[in-house]
Amino acid sequence: MILHNPIDMHLHIRQGTMLQKVLPWSADYFSSAVIMPNITPPVTSLQRVQEYKQEILACKDNFTPLLDVFLQKFTKEEIEQLKPHIFAMKFYPDGITTNSNSGINGIEEIYPTLELLAQYNIPLSIHGETNASVLEREREFAKVYEKLAQDFPNLTIIMEHISTKELANLATKYDNLLATVTLHHLLLSIDDLCGGALNVHYFCKPTVKLASDKEALGELVKSGHKNVMFGSDSAPHPLKNKFKGAAGIFSAPVILPKLAEFFDGDWDTFQKFISTNAIENFNLEFTPKKVEIVEDEWVVPRMIGEVVPIFAGERLPFSVKVVDEID
Amino acid sequence: MILHNPIDMHLHIRQGTMLQKVLPWSADYFSSAVIMPNITPPVTSLQRVQEYKQEILACKDNFTPLLDVFLQKFTKEEIEQLKPHIFAMKFYPDGITTNSNSGINGIEEIYPTLELLAQYNIPLSIHGETNASVLEREREFAKVYEKLAQDFPNLTIIMEHISTKELANLATKYDNLLATVTLHHLLLSIDDLCGGALNVHYFCKPTVKLASDKEALGELVKSGHKNVMFGSDSAPHPLKNKFKGAAGIFSAPVILPKLAEFFDGDWDTFQKFISTNAIENFNLEFTPKKVEIVEDEWVVPRMIGEVVPIFAGERLPFSVKVVDEID
Repeated sequence: MILHNPIDMHLHIRQGTMLQKVLPWSADYFSSAVIMPNITPPVTSLQRVQEYKQEILACKDNFTPLLDVFLQKFTKEEIEQLKPHIFAMKFYPDGITTNSNSGINGIEEIYPTLELLAQYNIPLSIHGETNASVLEREREFAKVYEKLAQDFPNLTIIMEHISTKELANLATKYDNLLATVTLHHLLLSIDDLCGGALNVHYFCKPTVKLASDKEALGELVKSGHKNVMFGSDSAPHPLKNKFKGAAGIFSAPVILPKLAEFFDGDWDTFQKFISTNAIENFNLEFTPKKVEIVEDEWVVPRMIGEVVPIFAGERLPFSVKVVDEID
Repeated sequence: MILHNPIDMHLHIRQGTMLQKVLPWSADYFSSAVIMPNITPPVTSLQRVQEYKQEILACKDNFTPLLDVFLQKFTKEEIEQLKPHIFAMKFYPDGITTNSNSGINGIEEIYPTLELLAQYNIPLSIHGETNASVLEREREFAKVYEKLAQDFPNLTIIMEHISTKELANLATKYDNLLATVTLHHLLLSIDDLCGGALNVHYFCKPTVKLASDKEALGELVKSGHKNVMFGSDSAPHPLKNKFKGAAGIFSAPVILPKLAEFFDGDWDTFQKFISTNAIENFNLEFTPKKVEIVEDEWVVPRMIGEVVPIFAGERLPFSVKVVDEID
């Protein structure tokens, strides 16, 4: 089958030698990717956006990087300057708490900035977890998402890497509340992380959840709903840091082969999830690309630089070839 | 404070050079310990019991090892021969499942052996988990424990390393259904394992559970109930195996200092939990020993042989001195 213009709506590619090693696995097969701003120093200004975009394009110019900047208390002028250069603003709630009366502490501080984002039509990208216990913190954040969707009907909000049935349900409820889903949350549950041996390569934030959550996400993705887009959250860490507990799964090398298994012949929905929904929701820029999923077995590399990819050493039934690149 | 005759009711000490490294941390401070039979080849016969006991006593003869043998379909004659040499029979349910009608598959196979254990007054030690999802498998096993306690009123059953509020509630319900509790299940929850960084040194089976489970276990232990005994489940693995996902926490070096913190001055209950309850429940053999808990800071070693102990490198407020050994 042929896929047109795959898009990764949530990607970490790091910097320097790590970027050189990991970026080709995305850039060679995807038309564009939304690049996360958690580098050193972080992407918090127009200057940092431009520097990071230059580093990426110097490594690979055969795809379109779409940059996020960390949400700050930007002035109107700063937002006007940033607007042409970024895709979205990324918000990591820090210390958000909720209580049983649906009260939410801490979120109103950013309301003036969110008003500006809505006004300038800049999407808000959110890592939605409270400071609750690890399996509950995303479920508890659902009411924050819902409040934001209602309070800002003209703001496009992206619930990133949703991992629970609660957010799977929420993902089709509001036109302005979209969702990205990763490969690993579609394929893994907490029993894969720690039900047998502990697998450090399956550890990420938000953590993989229960089998019932995985199934709800699978149903959502297979519905092809326009609100739902692929975002890998591929997040490479050197093996030595994984042993120290670093959260993040390097999935970039296996995304298309494993999604081909997941969709199991439903190529129309695969095309929507991997590309069409994102392009239509955001009128995205991208580098046109055609890739072919072929039934050729392929063994996932055991290491890529210092990083162990997810499913390292496993034999996959599908592999990917770039058919065509159009300038 | 002075503790008399500390007993560890559930201990893994391995074999060979590993045993040489880890055993002193138990034998020097404890009067006796129940030694788990999962070695190579496993302890499944009188001959293996005797060989293993010899290896242990050749390394350390200043304490009393109490050996478990794996539950087998033993004949009456084999059980008569084993009886003077063992403490209990250990049962790891394999493939036990339950259903919503309280049905339990697979348990009746061992009923004839359990009849013999009851007849010969040999305790049954159980690792109680079904094949359910990782956080539910012990909760689901509660009905197996309850059925066994009711079906064999003359058999003493030990629920090993209980980790959930369901089993904390069950531990005081039947005279013949006792429980051991580990240090790590009293101190850690799943948020310590994977709520921040992933900590491979906090990974064990049964996994640490929710904060509410930890609190229920803490209340149970602080009640001093006679059914409840300390069993460390200290289970050393070489660091390289922990990185591959091996389940087990090496807690032996920190047990008494950390329990002293936990009991926070309630030394009477500490004494019951660490010794008196076990001795009275089983009329246990032990090597008389007095240890003093002193307010001298102590730093947990970073490595002991190839093994990283729990709380490695942390500074603890209490340390332990052996006051007296009586022949």
